[in-house]
Amino acid sequence: MDLPPDAFARECASRVVLDRIGDRWTVLIVVALADGAIRFSQLRSRIEGITPKVLTQTLRALERDGVVTRTVFAEVPPRVEYELTELGRDLLAPIDAIRIWAEQHAARIVANRGRYDVAADRLRARS
Amino acid sequence: MDLPPDAFARECASRVVLDRIGDRWTVLIVVALADGAIRFSQLRSRIEGITPKVLTQTLRALERDGVVTRTVFAEVPPRVEYELTELGRDLLAPIDAIRIWAEQHAARIVANRGRYDVAADRLRARS
Repeated sequence: MDLPPDAFARECASRVVLDRIGDRWTVLIVVALADGAIRFSQLRSRIEGITPKVLTQTLRALERDGVVTRTVFAEVPPRVEYELTELGRDLLAPIDAIRIWAEQHAARIVANRGRYDVAADRLRARS
Repeated sequence: MDLPPDAFARECASRVVLDRIGDRWTVLIVVALADGAIRFSQLRSRIEGITPKVLTQTLRALERDGVVTRTVFAEVPPRVEYELTELGRDLLAPIDAIRIWAEQHAARIVANRGRYDVAADRLRARS
């Protein structure tokens, strides 16, 4: 009998999945696809600062995972659209909760970091 | 007036926060601290495969963010315990949803990857 999946176990595949879904660009791409199929260029302008190379690589990884589908429309020039699969839509809720948490607490965390660094500097100066 | 936080914006601090909370080890440490304060050695045995160096670095980053507190008890040898702050407990729900999603869908994602790679190999062989 197989053991149930356990992310605390060294060999569990869920760890590899964690790495993918925890990735900053994955979070932003999945959330950007929440409202339906969009084109590469739309994703690129929605997600500020992502390079075309990283966007291509991340989309390919998500397609490989079965989270995103890529559809090529036979037009001139060819239109390529990306869309969440059922699995991807299922991932949307937990991933969006992470994004919302990050946005809500970013200012507080940045302030905490500043305080920590000042305290650490003082400790160093004393020793 | 400040703009509201927006993870899609290039300069938004929430992106840096996303990187931290999306990290595999952060997810596992925060979940491991769900039941209250524990010691470094307990964390180390709970989270299989984490090296002492990475555990130390991740705990320090979480302490700096204000997600974890580190308490040293004046015993011989000194006892050091880690605990979630209020901010850390607030992070627990979204982070645990991510872990559970990863565990529930790991097998399916691994299968999707296998299928994708077979199809990609066939395409390459044809061209």
